[in-house]
Amino acid sequence: MSDFKRIAIIGVGLIGGSFGLAVKERELADDVVGIGYRDETLVRAEARGAIDRWTLDLEEGVSDADLAVVCTPVGLVPEKAIAAAQAMPPGGIVTDVASTKEVITGKIEAELPDGIAFVPAHPMAGSEERGNENATAGLFEGARVILTLTDRTPDAAADAVHYLWERLGARVERLDVAAHDRIVARISHLPHLIAPALVNAVDEASLPYAATGMKDTTRIAASDVRLWVDIFRDNRLNVLDALRAFGVELESIGEALERSDWAKLARCLERARDRRQGLSDDE
Amino acid sequence: MSDFKRIAIIGVGLIGGSFGLAVKERELADDVVGIGYRDETLVRAEARGAIDRWTLDLEEGVSDADLAVVCTPVGLVPEKAIAAAQAMPPGGIVTDVASTKEVITGKIEAELPDGIAFVPAHPMAGSEERGNENATAGLFEGARVILTLTDRTPDAAADAVHYLWERLGARVERLDVAAHDRIVARISHLPHLIAPALVNAVDEASLPYAATGMKDTTRIAASDVRLWVDIFRDNRLNVLDALRAFGVELESIGEALERSDWAKLARCLERARDRRQGLSDDE
Repeated sequence: MSDFKRIAIIGVGLIGGSFGLAVKERELADDVVGIGYRDETLVRAEARGAIDRWTLDLEEGVSDADLAVVCTPVGLVPEKAIAAAQAMPPGGIVTDVASTKEVITGKIEAELPDGIAFVPAHPMAGSEERGNENATAGLFEGARVILTLTDRTPDAAADAVHYLWERLGARVERLDVAAHDRIVARISHLPHLIAPALVNAVDEASLPYAATGMKDTTRIAASDVRLWVDIFRDNRLNVLDALRAFGVELESIGEALERSDWAKLARCLERARDRRQGLSDDE
Repeated sequence: MSDFKRIAIIGVGLIGGSFGLAVKERELADDVVGIGYRDETLVRAEARGAIDRWTLDLEEGVSDADLAVVCTPVGLVPEKAIAAAQAMPPGGIVTDVASTKEVITGKIEAELPDGIAFVPAHPMAGSEERGNENATAGLFEGARVILTLTDRTPDAAADAVHYLWERLGARVERLDVAAHDRIVARISHLPHLIAPALVNAVDEASLPYAATGMKDTTRIAASDVRLWVDIFRDNRLNVLDALRAFGVELESIGEALERSDWAKLARCLERARDRRQGLSDDE
């Protein structure tokens, strides 16, 4: 028995496709509708079994859905979430998967019709890969999903989304929206600025010599540019703050090197080593 | 038929152990001797088949070797290479695997006895892992090995080491030593400073939320500290230069963010994306 009868997925790429595959595999909805811009993407999603049917018409797609999950790039989330909320039957729930929350949530709640709930959510899964050809039913297993509920989020809707993500294997946590945006600025958005700067600091002659260390460190520099510019725009102040914190650490390391203060450099590296080793690599 | 009868490996950790396993698997020497500090390491290397026998006495270990490969951390390479050169029979070749070359080569050549050749070499393989328990015979397959020969390197010795690495599956290239040290400062040493700075820029409350992006980007922050301090010391000027280049790129990205210049930020990210995508991930 599932909590949702009809789930509409708006944007069936890596995250939306994986969500569909996971929901279908666990039989958590009777019917999964895919909504998107391009036939090709939706045909592939259906062929892969991530959705039962699809449409290019958002209003039609959500018209009989009780849950609409917006999985578009961050920049499109408010517009699509509001459009879905306005076309859903009363009692419907809209949720999202965006990695910034405060700006998006404010925009959506300002236009939310009565009788429709918005549950802000951020599954911390994904990669520099794109498209539902890379989607997997197991993407969210063991992944953290953060819900950033507001005064306007109805408890029942929050619980339904919370429970759905748990059924998909995720570890669900609730955080204050400001805390969420500050945390992701440090652990997700900051590396997405550092990795490109590192790639660009390597001259043409040296770049072909890049081996494992450089490749690991800069893998995320291959990420989708438009998506990330929108994220940086939404979370600009927190990212600037994270950049400043990085600048302080980098200056400390640079000074140690400049002054040949090897004891100080060793202390910086030891601190980083101990903290990095504290993060498991298999989750 | 092998070019070397007896190979002595000084320092049988990840690189030395993998070298031994690869040489033995391909039957490129009649006898491989391991030399080290600790019984435990050498017993394990022998049990794994990376060496045929072992000793704690460097002079004894190299006394009948025609090739001595110094695989210790960078800081110990000159001392061990000179000790090996002084104890080897005439005609012997000493080579190394260190990732900095100019300082090390200068120190070794200053003390090199007549009749012994030193061939400076740098296999660009390895990881943040340590110890011969992580050694594999395939570590150097497809990896780049750079030889930084000097006026004093005899052609025959250079060719013998060159050929040996090719037999181990490596792609061998010869570079001017100054060019080598400049290149590795950018593509290897720089990320080993950036990753620790990035880890240290994340506050305690945020760190547990780190997901794939942060983990990939900072994996090498878990590397051996003493080893890396020695590398930074040897290659200090090139690394400072690389840090300055990184600072310029970071400032450019930071300014775009500060001024909300999204077109400029997109250009920085696009350039990095295109350059990063040009690096294959499977070599």
